[in-house]
Amino acid sequence: MVNQVQRVEDTWRTCSKSDSSGASNSGCESSKESSRSSTPVLDTDRTDRLRDKMRRRTESGDHWFSLEFFPPRTASGAVNLISRFDRMGSGGPLFIDVTWHPAGDPGSDKETSSMMIASTAVNYCGLESILHLTCCNQTKEKITGYLSKAKRLGLKNIMALRGDPMGADWEEEEAGFNYATDLVKHIRCEFDDYFDICVAGYPTGHPEAESYDEDLRHLKEKVDAGADFIITQLFFRADTFLKFVRDCRAIGITCPILPGIFPIQGYQSLRQLVKLSKLEVPEEIMQVIEPIKDNDAAIRNYGIEQAVGMCRVLLESGEVPGLHFYTLNREVATMEVLRQLGLWIEDPRRTLPWAVSAHPKRKVEDVRPIFWASRPKSYIYRTQDWDDFPNGRWGNSSSPAFGELNDYYLFYLKSKSSKDALLKMWGEELTSEQSVYEVFTSYITAQPNVAGHKVMCLPWNDDPLAPETNLLKDELDKVNRRGVLTINSQPSINGKPSSDPIVGWGPPGGYVFQKAYLEFFTSSENVTALLKVLKKYEPRVNYHIVNVHGQNTTNAHDMQPNAVTWGIFPGREIVQPTVVDPVSFLYWKDEAFALWIEQWAKLYEDESPSRMIIKYIHDNYFLVNLVDNDFPLDNCLWQVIDDMFELLDNPPEEQPAEQTAEQPNDEQSDKEQPGK
Amino acid sequence: MVNQVQRVEDTWRTCSKSDSSGASNSGCESSKESSRSSTPVLDTDRTDRLRDKMRRRTESGDHWFSLEFFPPRTASGAVNLISRFDRMGSGGPLFIDVTWHPAGDPGSDKETSSMMIASTAVNYCGLESILHLTCCNQTKEKITGYLSKAKRLGLKNIMALRGDPMGADWEEEEAGFNYATDLVKHIRCEFDDYFDICVAGYPTGHPEAESYDEDLRHLKEKVDAGADFIITQLFFRADTFLKFVRDCRAIGITCPILPGIFPIQGYQSLRQLVKLSKLEVPEEIMQVIEPIKDNDAAIRNYGIEQAVGMCRVLLESGEVPGLHFYTLNREVATMEVLRQLGLWIEDPRRTLPWAVSAHPKRKVEDVRPIFWASRPKSYIYRTQDWDDFPNGRWGNSSSPAFGELNDYYLFYLKSKSSKDALLKMWGEELTSEQSVYEVFTSYITAQPNVAGHKVMCLPWNDDPLAPETNLLKDELDKVNRRGVLTINSQPSINGKPSSDPIVGWGPPGGYVFQKAYLEFFTSSENVTALLKVLKKYEPRVNYHIVNVHGQNTTNAHDMQPNAVTWGIFPGREIVQPTVVDPVSFLYWKDEAFALWIEQWAKLYEDESPSRMIIKYIHDNYFLVNLVDNDFPLDNCLWQVIDDMFELLDNPPEEQPAEQTAEQPNDEQSDKEQPGK
Repeated sequence: MVNQVQRVEDTWRTCSKSDSSGASNSGCESSKESSRSSTPVLDTDRTDRLRDKMRRRTESGDHWFSLEFFPPRTASGAVNLISRFDRMGSGGPLFIDVTWHPAGDPGSDKETSSMMIASTAVNYCGLESILHLTCCNQTKEKITGYLSKAKRLGLKNIMALRGDPMGADWEEEEAGFNYATDLVKHIRCEFDDYFDICVAGYPTGHPEAESYDEDLRHLKEKVDAGADFIITQLFFRADTFLKFVRDCRAIGITCPILPGIFPIQGYQSLRQLVKLSKLEVPEEIMQVIEPIKDNDAAIRNYGIEQAVGMCRVLLESGEVPGLHFYTLNREVATMEVLRQLGLWIEDPRRTLPWAVSAHPKRKVEDVRPIFWASRPKSYIYRTQDWDDFPNGRWGNSSSPAFGELNDYYLFYLKSKSSKDALLKMWGEELTSEQSVYEVFTSYITAQPNVAGHKVMCLPWNDDPLAPETNLLKDELDKVNRRGVLTINSQPSINGKPSSDPIVGWGPPGGYVFQKAYLEFFTSSENVTALLKVLKKYEPRVNYHIVNVHGQNTTNAHDMQPNAVTWGIFPGREIVQPTVVDPVSFLYWKDEAFALWIEQWAKLYEDESPSRMIIKYIHDNYFLVNLVDNDFPLDNCLWQVIDDMFELLDNPPEEQPAEQTAEQPNDEQSDKEQPGK
Repeated sequence: MVNQVQRVEDTWRTCSKSDSSGASNSGCESSKESSRSSTPVLDTDRTDRLRDKMRRRTESGDHWFSLEFFPPRTASGAVNLISRFDRMGSGGPLFIDVTWHPAGDPGSDKETSSMMIASTAVNYCGLESILHLTCCNQTKEKITGYLSKAKRLGLKNIMALRGDPMGADWEEEEAGFNYATDLVKHIRCEFDDYFDICVAGYPTGHPEAESYDEDLRHLKEKVDAGADFIITQLFFRADTFLKFVRDCRAIGITCPILPGIFPIQGYQSLRQLVKLSKLEVPEEIMQVIEPIKDNDAAIRNYGIEQAVGMCRVLLESGEVPGLHFYTLNREVATMEVLRQLGLWIEDPRRTLPWAVSAHPKRKVEDVRPIFWASRPKSYIYRTQDWDDFPNGRWGNSSSPAFGELNDYYLFYLKSKSSKDALLKMWGEELTSEQSVYEVFTSYITAQPNVAGHKVMCLPWNDDPLAPETNLLKDELDKVNRRGVLTINSQPSINGKPSSDPIVGWGPPGGYVFQKAYLEFFTSSENVTALLKVLKKYEPRVNYHIVNVHGQNTTNAHDMQPNAVTWGIFPGREIVQPTVVDPVSFLYWKDEAFALWIEQWAKLYEDESPSRMIIKYIHDNYFLVNLVDNDFPLDNCLWQVIDDMFELLDNPPEEQPAEQTAEQPNDEQSDKEQPGK
């Protein structure tokens, strides 16, 4: 704490005046505008650049890790890799990096390109990412084009590499990119300090270098040209790396040097890698591996044990603040090594209740409509063209310009489960609206459907029910059975600690709050009853009801947004990350209704009864959202739905019937006027 | 409710598309920027223009009132009038108006000018105000100049009048301002629809008009030229007004017509007014008044009774939505009439915890630093040059540009109590710092000081202790006695209804919250102990400690603001109207320290002991603020202060002394190394 206070004092010492006249402190003046547009920083990691994060973590004595991936060959491989990013991202890597595949059209817009994979990691998975870039045989224009595109996509870090020459007869080109140093210089020349730059180090010397010392001098040139840190080629002994670091320091390389860790995962992949990298596997490792070379599990276990042991030596040396893992796009070995080292974060603290994006222009974003809670990637996609993002508040009814859901995004969505798997979950054949209700109920209860298959996702929810929604499971089960087809909900919360494992988010020491929320599709008959019931709940319950044709009813005050999740933290302004915004809801409704057709109806033949049933729901049901504003009280939304069912089950009889009830006083006036 | 829903439906019907393709709802598109900068509307009254407020109130069947004042002759009269604006403003007038005194340099910057009084009402008292303007004998340039200035000052409404011709030989000027109609046309021509325009109506005809009918035609011309509503000259019989309204409607005047009510307050003032306005007092009134003409109280009581009776007839007629009162700058009679009519709001609902300004550019302002809580006018003054105001959040450490406290404002401050009154309250002669502590204690406890005078204000607090602060009285008393000189504080609040009479604010149905806050001056010895104590309270307590020379210590995270008051309301975003901002605190500290000298030390002779004591405190004490972040728990700030006193009373002895304490286990290692 002392450090912090002193730092603040230092900051202020330069701009505080000893002035007792009551005059303003004009030494600290800056523009009014900037003070208005700024935002509280919930998480410094969102605003710092990579080299600063690295420095901060290193100074704090914290150990950290990073993960390397290569781009996939196929579209379905891309979908799998993105899921892997989400899973491995939750363990808390400081960054990931994506290799550059010169043969695979790496700078293109294809979903499998290095560029698009790195962009997805940043924008949709919220991961600090480094894009590799090789310069060999490339024109300056081409390289500048790649870098400009990377910048436009929100990438902020480049691993500058020479790459393997194409063909055997490669020669140095005058004024071309012959070495990684040329690329580093080019990046600094064309993009100034925009990118953080990483370069490769070779603990045993680059295979093509004249000597180890010659290679060290090349590395020094790369750093002097503007590289911020070094990641090394893999190695098999801690000593190899530690000697390399000492040699680097000795010739004046002062930047961070991250060891490249390669947990041995199989005999073949080891042999191939060794061949490519021209490394020698130490005798003591070969002796263990050769006898078990056909036993994959044994080799992997050995690889884990060997990596853990080496990493421990590295970390204990005090020379190594972080470890860089060559994952080979696999999860098990790397995660196990990290777990054993205690570096894997099992229960990651959420900065906000939703997954943030790492695009620089989104770093201040801290408010989103709740509707996309289960489809954060769709939300990011549809808002990718915004120039600035809401922070502090959402703002009222001016209409935000949501982008359209085009084929690229729908491709990504659709390919996660196969058509066959979806049919098993959602029904090979639907016979009635009721059979649709049963799909929802199976999803909610995690019980198998009539055909014996578990429903793991719905068109509106890519994943099984969130732990938070699980709190509402019994109630959700009950209402879905009767055709209140819920797609989003949250319980009310009146000040739980921000560290709560289920509903907590944000910095420690705070309190989080929620208003209860429920969103569902339901028939127009139900909506008619619901609207009658809702009159009893004014102004406690805000509602918004719309069908696919845009027929629309709400009691939102002046179409203002309603904050439904907020947090109070020590020393900070209020954060309100989710709102129910009546304007955005109309954009969401287009998406929510479209998913019936695009994801569900299209599984069936044209004109088939199953498809007609989904089409009927799409055309006739309403999408409803309800907010219970009275967050300190028990959630009344279930009572609202119960009242609706009650009204449907026991519709009030006609007016005359009431007069026969036992209310003699009320009837008196009528009795006195029998002729009436 | 049904109305509201339908209105919303209508709004949306035009921009919702029946589009099931998942395409975005581009019919509603607007700029992204506008959706980001907008703000929730806590109170439509802050954003609507006067004619819309009037229409809304009239449509809702609500009755309302407005108040007319004239500019004062002297500076101290101005101070009194501004206090009256605050008091009478709390009763809930729809607007006030300020008359134009052609002889009193009405458009000047003098604190007594019509222009400045109206500007003060708008900017500092938050009152919707109409500035009168007369055009007779004025050039167009001059009039345009007045109107431009009024607009610049935030005035939005003009009462367009001809005014009395100067001198007896007045003649119509070609292309000059001969009638109020000319002024109305000029305003609309030069300022389009910016101003709401009011014109005068004469229920018995203008004294100079050829006839009653001729005068009605003139009124019709004024309205046709662009006037929005009419306020009438005073009258003595309800029938006079109601006939006038019927006659107006008959010739096609459809705008609101507000009756001018004049509660008779004294014989002389009645005679004078009647003479000026050339009105006849009805016989039935003269018969009552003449016999009691020397009994002011009796006349006033009669005036109240007469006005109440007439107003009741007017309101019950259904023709009168609101009443306009000629107050003659007095409070009692008008307030009594309004109370009897049930129009006076006894317990006004606060939109925000602080008094809002009615300047149009401040209409979105909903966040302020807590430091100016007792000096809202100073805050408004020092931020008057800002182009935009914080809403939703305060934002982080960029420095807001606070204006300097110049003479104009200090004038206003200083003149509220006389030097003599201040000396009685704050001590004719100070003998020690202790005698200063006693002044603070007397203020807090509302007990007389040693000289027997109540301390009704302090340099930092214009008014007696707020009811909310009263909740903390016992604790405040205790700490002030020991030289913790409190100038601002609030208790913690964990979700009280927004309707709470003491701490509530904002729309009904909400919940308000506070973090406990304490701000005080104290000696550097105390601060040394306090800083030690505060280590125990990390990170629960945020502190900021600074002296007049700018020596500055805080544990504010990245100099971020801390929200200390916030409210959660149905269907709205979170509102957080007060923050503790470490940057603004350094501007406030200049003001807070300056008040010691400007308001207190300067009461005494140069070099006098009293003055030296205040100067010593000014030069050596620190200004401290403390926030307890854990609002759901009991306020720990009193414990912090207690711990500080405890540490001062029982300073820990030197290190060796601790080793003699009964902690055998802890001492073991020392005992084993006797040679150490």
